[in-house]
Amino acid sequence: MFSETSMTTSSTPLPSSRLYSFVGGRIGQRWPSPSNGPRSFEGSWRIESIQQVIGESLPPAARLAVLGHAASLPTSEAIWSLHGVTSNERYVLNEEKTILSAKQEGLGRPESSRAALIPIRKHAEWWALAQDARRQVFEEQSHHVALGLHVLPAVARRLHHCRDIGTQEPFDFLTWFEYAQSDAALFEELVKTMRATPEWHYVEREVDIRLVRDDR
Amino acid sequence: MFSETSMTTSSTPLPSSRLYSFVGGRIGQRWPSPSNGPRSFEGSWRIESIQQVIGESLPPAARLAVLGHAASLPTSEAIWSLHGVTSNERYVLNEEKTILSAKQEGLGRPESSRAALIPIRKHAEWWALAQDARRQVFEEQSHHVALGLHVLPAVARRLHHCRDIGTQEPFDFLTWFEYAQSDAALFEELVKTMRATPEWHYVEREVDIRLVRDDR
Repeated sequence: MFSETSMTTSSTPLPSSRLYSFVGGRIGQRWPSPSNGPRSFEGSWRIESIQQVIGESLPPAARLAVLGHAASLPTSEAIWSLHGVTSNERYVLNEEKTILSAKQEGLGRPESSRAALIPIRKHAEWWALAQDARRQVFEEQSHHVALGLHVLPAVARRLHHCRDIGTQEPFDFLTWFEYAQSDAALFEELVKTMRATPEWHYVEREVDIRLVRDDR
Repeated sequence: MFSETSMTTSSTPLPSSRLYSFVGGRIGQRWPSPSNGPRSFEGSWRIESIQQVIGESLPPAARLAVLGHAASLPTSEAIWSLHGVTSNERYVLNEEKTILSAKQEGLGRPESSRAALIPIRKHAEWWALAQDARRQVFEEQSHHVALGLHVLPAVARRLHHCRDIGTQEPFDFLTWFEYAQSDAALFEELVKTMRATPEWHYVEREVDIRLVRDDR
């Protein structure tokens, strides 16, 4: 959406290198190949379940493609597409960041055969709070960082922000989790505990999509 | 960039209602009329100066259009276009927010015949800092909120975020200021003081565009 030129020729806006797309498709879906344009193909997953947690769910889909550096996919290839950018941390303190960095592991570990995509939208009241009031609910009341730390390094995580993406997105955040089958119970406990925190009083829409790796 | 449909028809993504575009154009530029699509036309300004402060400047332009709710303009109408979204506050504490809200006035005051558009990009080192480290530089070291408060209500302000917009934008922030001619010296003092703060050590690109209202 940016053009900076002394000429008046038209130009195609380039997607941010921090933009990711999560695309739900049909059984037998043929996804674009990694060599197709500037997209990087992060993997294909079989959708095990799409659970409505709070508010409206998403339409049924059988497969999910995770695409990095993608502006968009042709909608003819998708049942639904969700987009978000990775960004700087918003609440994590310096001390917490050091501990998190030391304990966490990256995505794509061979043993991580399970994944969850949890899109969330928070109420306007949340966004109207000042920074310290949001941090207070996030950590001092809800222990968001501490709960996440508790499941490290078993659960790897990447947070994508959608609220300020410039187009109307149905969610504020897309959180992507990867874990081994043997850590599935630990992950269930994390999700259950998070949903019982004061922070979740501000969640007005949440969908829980569970996945099994299927890279063939 | 979102599509959510059980059909596979293509759809045009709708811009966020918080998206604003600042478009530099030529003398005699004909801007799109307010009735042209979903855009709202916030005003037309004559560009008095484009000053390179840090890093690369922007190409010369004679007029600036401020468009609300705009995804993009045809590039044939623009020399350059900058885009950003208004968002939640990132550093302001609850007590500060209360004081700011009580003192500040809105954009579009009849006496505000002068404006400044100051696009800024911060260094990657800034974005790698934890939240408390950024707040520390922002306020405890640089008094960003306090300095802004000092010029209220004379200087009205709207901050636009570009960093997480989903496309490659040349700046992280676009700050828009409006003030009366009689407050021009006060505004100069604010800008000069801000640029001398520790926060500005992290600024790697800054352009200062000064404007005079021209709504005819």
